[in-house]
Amino acid sequence: MPNVTDRYHNLVKTLKEITTLDSAASLLSWDEQTFMPKKGAELRANQASLLARMSHEKFTDSWIGEMLRELEGSELTRERYSDSEVNIRWTRRLYDRATKVPPKLVEEMSRTAVLAYEAWVAARKKADYKEFQPWLQKTLELKREEAKCVGYKGHIYNALLDSFEPDETAENLTQVFAALRGPLVELIGKITSSGRKAPVEILERKYPAAMQEKLSREAAAKIGFDFEAGRLDVAVHPFCQGLGPGDCRMTTRYDENYFGDAFFGVLHESGHGLYNQGLESEHWGTPRGEYISLGIHESQSRMWENLVGRSASFWRFYFPKAKDAFGETLRDVNEEQWVFAINDVRPSLIRTESDEATYNLHILLRFELEQAMLSGDLAVADIPAAWNEKMKKYLGLTPPDDSKGCLQDVHWSGGAIGYFPTYTLGNLYAAQFFQQARKDLGDLDGQFSRGEFGNLLSWLRQNIHRHGRRYSARELVKKVTGRELSWEPLVAHLKEKASRLYGVN
Amino acid sequence: MPNVTDRYHNLVKTLKEITTLDSAASLLSWDEQTFMPKKGAELRANQASLLARMSHEKFTDSWIGEMLRELEGSELTRERYSDSEVNIRWTRRLYDRATKVPPKLVEEMSRTAVLAYEAWVAARKKADYKEFQPWLQKTLELKREEAKCVGYKGHIYNALLDSFEPDETAENLTQVFAALRGPLVELIGKITSSGRKAPVEILERKYPAAMQEKLSREAAAKIGFDFEAGRLDVAVHPFCQGLGPGDCRMTTRYDENYFGDAFFGVLHESGHGLYNQGLESEHWGTPRGEYISLGIHESQSRMWENLVGRSASFWRFYFPKAKDAFGETLRDVNEEQWVFAINDVRPSLIRTESDEATYNLHILLRFELEQAMLSGDLAVADIPAAWNEKMKKYLGLTPPDDSKGCLQDVHWSGGAIGYFPTYTLGNLYAAQFFQQARKDLGDLDGQFSRGEFGNLLSWLRQNIHRHGRRYSARELVKKVTGRELSWEPLVAHLKEKASRLYGVN
Repeated sequence: MPNVTDRYHNLVKTLKEITTLDSAASLLSWDEQTFMPKKGAELRANQASLLARMSHEKFTDSWIGEMLRELEGSELTRERYSDSEVNIRWTRRLYDRATKVPPKLVEEMSRTAVLAYEAWVAARKKADYKEFQPWLQKTLELKREEAKCVGYKGHIYNALLDSFEPDETAENLTQVFAALRGPLVELIGKITSSGRKAPVEILERKYPAAMQEKLSREAAAKIGFDFEAGRLDVAVHPFCQGLGPGDCRMTTRYDENYFGDAFFGVLHESGHGLYNQGLESEHWGTPRGEYISLGIHESQSRMWENLVGRSASFWRFYFPKAKDAFGETLRDVNEEQWVFAINDVRPSLIRTESDEATYNLHILLRFELEQAMLSGDLAVADIPAAWNEKMKKYLGLTPPDDSKGCLQDVHWSGGAIGYFPTYTLGNLYAAQFFQQARKDLGDLDGQFSRGEFGNLLSWLRQNIHRHGRRYSARELVKKVTGRELSWEPLVAHLKEKASRLYGVN
Repeated sequence: MPNVTDRYHNLVKTLKEITTLDSAASLLSWDEQTFMPKKGAELRANQASLLARMSHEKFTDSWIGEMLRELEGSELTRERYSDSEVNIRWTRRLYDRATKVPPKLVEEMSRTAVLAYEAWVAARKKADYKEFQPWLQKTLELKREEAKCVGYKGHIYNALLDSFEPDETAENLTQVFAALRGPLVELIGKITSSGRKAPVEILERKYPAAMQEKLSREAAAKIGFDFEAGRLDVAVHPFCQGLGPGDCRMTTRYDENYFGDAFFGVLHESGHGLYNQGLESEHWGTPRGEYISLGIHESQSRMWENLVGRSASFWRFYFPKAKDAFGETLRDVNEEQWVFAINDVRPSLIRTESDEATYNLHILLRFELEQAMLSGDLAVADIPAAWNEKMKKYLGLTPPDDSKGCLQDVHWSGGAIGYFPTYTLGNLYAAQFFQQARKDLGDLDGQFSRGEFGNLLSWLRQNIHRHGRRYSARELVKKVTGRELSWEPLVAHLKEKASRLYGVN
C-alpha cells in the first residue's frame, strides 16, 4: 500500500496535470482575444468547452476526494502553512466547492450566461433595462441556488464572494467600505470645489501608437516584467493572463488621441504580471503556487499603476523619456502639469473611466446593490432607481440613461456577482502594503526618481508573491503590515496627493 | 440497446472530440513557433505531451474497437464511398495502427527523437556524421520494430510509407521514380549545358520585408485564401497548420536581400491552406473531412507555388504589381527577365534551396537510400559515401562535407523515414492534376494573366478538396485524370518550360 507521502505526490501530480490542461485552455482564450481569425470562433468555443469539461471531470473525480480523506489528519497537515498542509487544505476547499454544485446547475449557469450576455449587449445598446431585467432575475436565482449548494455563514453574499476573495465576508467589507465612504465623499467634494482643474487637455493630443507601445514596453521592462517570459499584445479588452511558469501574457489597446489608457493599462497589467512571475514555479499547478485572491492580485496591479506609476517621483525619471518620445506633442508641457493631468480627480458616470479616488465610490455602490438584490431586499425592477439614487448621493451625478448607469458593466450578465468589491479591496491592500514598503525601504521616491524599482519589487516578491496561497489575504495583510485591512492608508494616500495637487485636505 | 445509427453517431461524436483536442494541441504548436516567449518552452512541452497522451488514450480506448466491430458489416458500410463507410473503414485502419504499436515503443521513439535531434544538430554543426551515426542506427532499429508491429506486405518500407502516403508502395514508387529519373537527369543536363543563364542576380537585390509581406498577402488572397478564416505570420520554419474549420494558419520568413523564399513560400503554404479551407467542415473531425495523404496535400502547395506561381501568365498579371511595390529595385527589369530568374534551374547541394526540376533528384536519392538502410542492405556507416555517390551521379555534384550532404535534413533525426517521397509525389500529382485542369478549363493562362484564379480553385475544390478521405490518392488520381500516377505530366511541364527559357528539349 502506498504510504502517505506517495499519496500526496500522486495528488500533486494529478493537480499539476489538471493545471497544465487549464493552461492550454488559457492559451486558447488568449489567442481568441488577440490573433484568432474571425471565422474560428465556433471551433474555439468547442475547444474551450471540451478542455473545461475534461478539467472539471478530472478535478471532481472521487479519487481526489479519497486521497484528501487519507491525507487529512496525516503528518502532512500537522504543520500549519507547510507546503503540503496548504495544498491539502486548499484542495479540499476547492474540491468541495466544485463537487457541491451539481453539473446541471453549472450547465444552466453557463447557458444562461451566454444568453444574458447577449441580452445585456442589446439592452445596453438601446439603453433599455427592461430587456436585461428578466435575465438578471434569472441569473440571481441561479446564483442563490449556487450559494445554497456551496453553503455559507452570515450573508448569502459570502457564498459568492468566497470564490473571488476567499475568507472575506460581506459583513467585514460593509464595515470597511462604510468607513471609507465618508472620508472619500468628503475629499472628492473638496477637490471638486477647490477651483483647481488638472490640465487634462494635454493628454488628448496626438500620441502615435507605435511610440505609446515603445514607452509602455520600456516601462514594463523597467519595473521588472520579464519579456523573455511574457508578451504584450493588442486586444480590445486589456488583460493579463499567466499561462504558467515562463509564460505570462498581457494586452492593451492604443488610442492615438489619448495618453493614459495604454500606458497606465500596461503598468496595471504588468503589476498582475509581476505577481504572476513572482509565484514559485516549483509549486505551479498546486494551491501553494497559486495567487491568493482577486483582491491581492488587484493590489499588485493598482500599486504599479497608481501608487508607483502616477507618482511625481516616477515621472521625475520618466517624463524626459516621454518628452523625447512624443516630441512636439509635449514641447510646451512641464513635469508638474503632466503629473497634475494624469492625477485628475473628477466624478464621472463610468467606472472604467474614473480616477483613482472616485473609482471606489463606483464599487461601493455596486457592492451595496449586489447584496440587496441577492438577498431580495431590492427588487430587480428597482435597480435602476436605486443605482441612480446612489450615484447622486456618492458622486453627485445622474446618468442620462441606464446604458451610462446600471447597464454599463458586463459582470452581472456573466453571473460575476461578488466580484466588484475585489477592485476596491485591491486599492485598499495596495495602499496598505505600499505604506509598509515605504517604512521598510526608506526613500522610495528617491529610488523611483532614479528609475530604481528593484527594491520595491524584491519586497513584493519576498513578502507577497513567493507565498502563493500559503496565507489568506487577511492573514497576509496582517503579517506584512502588522494590522487588519484598513481604509486609512488609501485615504491618507489620496489626501496627500489632493493636498499637493488641489491644495485641499 | 442502441441501434447501429446511434452507435455510429456516438463514434463520430467521440472522433470529433478527439480531433477537437488535437486541434487545441495544434494551437500550442503554432504558438510555439510564432509567439511563445522563450522561457515558456518547458511548460509548452508539458502541455503538448499531456494533450497528445490524452488524445492517444481516447483513440486507443477499447470502446472504439468495440464500436468498430459492431459497425463493420452493418448497412452503414454497405455502400462503398458513403460517408459512414469511409469513416468506419478509415477509423479501423487508424485504430489498428495506433493500437498495434505498444505504448512503450511509442515512448522510446519519442524519447529517441528528442536525443537524436540534439545529436543531429551538433553533428551537422561540426559536419561530423560519426556523431549522428549511432542515433540513426537506433532510430532505424526502432522503425523496423514499429514496422514489425504494424505489419506490411512487400518491402518493409511500406509499413512506414503507409502513415504518410496510405496505399502507396515502395514497389510502385520505385517504378515511377525510376521512369522519372532518366528523362529528368537528361533534361537537367541539357539545361546546364545550354549556355543560357537565368538572371538570378535580380532576385538578390533589396526587397523590404514589409513590401514582400504585402505582396505575398495580396497574392494569397487573390488565389483564394480566406484571411477571415486564417492568418499569415512569421516563423523560422515556414508551415501551414489547419486547426479546424475557420482557422488555418500559415507562416513564412522574409529575407530582405532575396526575393523568392517568402513570396513563393506563401503561395506554397496557401496551396496547403486552400486544400484545408476546402475540406467539408461538417465532416471535420472524421476521416471523411480529413486530407488524404501528404502527397496529395503537397500537390496542392506545389501546384500553386510552381505551376501557377512561376508561370509566365501569373506574372503577366502580377509583375506590374511587383514593380509598383519595389520601385527602384525592379526599374531595369522586364517581365521576361523576371520570369526567367524565378525559374532558374541549376543543380545544387541543398534540397530546400533547389528548383522545381532538380528538387526531385534530391528526393529520389533519399528514397533509394532510405529503402536500403531500412532493409539493412546499406550499413549506416556507409550512408555518407552512398549519398555522395548518388549526388555525383544524379546532379554532378560532390558535397564538401556531410553537413551539406547526408546531414542536411532534419527528417531522419525525428524518425520521419518514408516521408521524403511525398514531396516528389506532390510534384507528380500536381502536374498530372494540372494537365487535366487545363483540359477541363480551357485557357488557364489567359485567366491567370487577368488575375482570375477562381476557376482553377473551384475545379480543385470540386475534384479534390471536398472529397476528404473518401478516395485514396491512387483512386483519386485515376478518377480525376483517367489514368494512374505517371511521371510524364511533370516531365512534359518541365520540358515545356525548359524549351521556352533555355531553348532545349
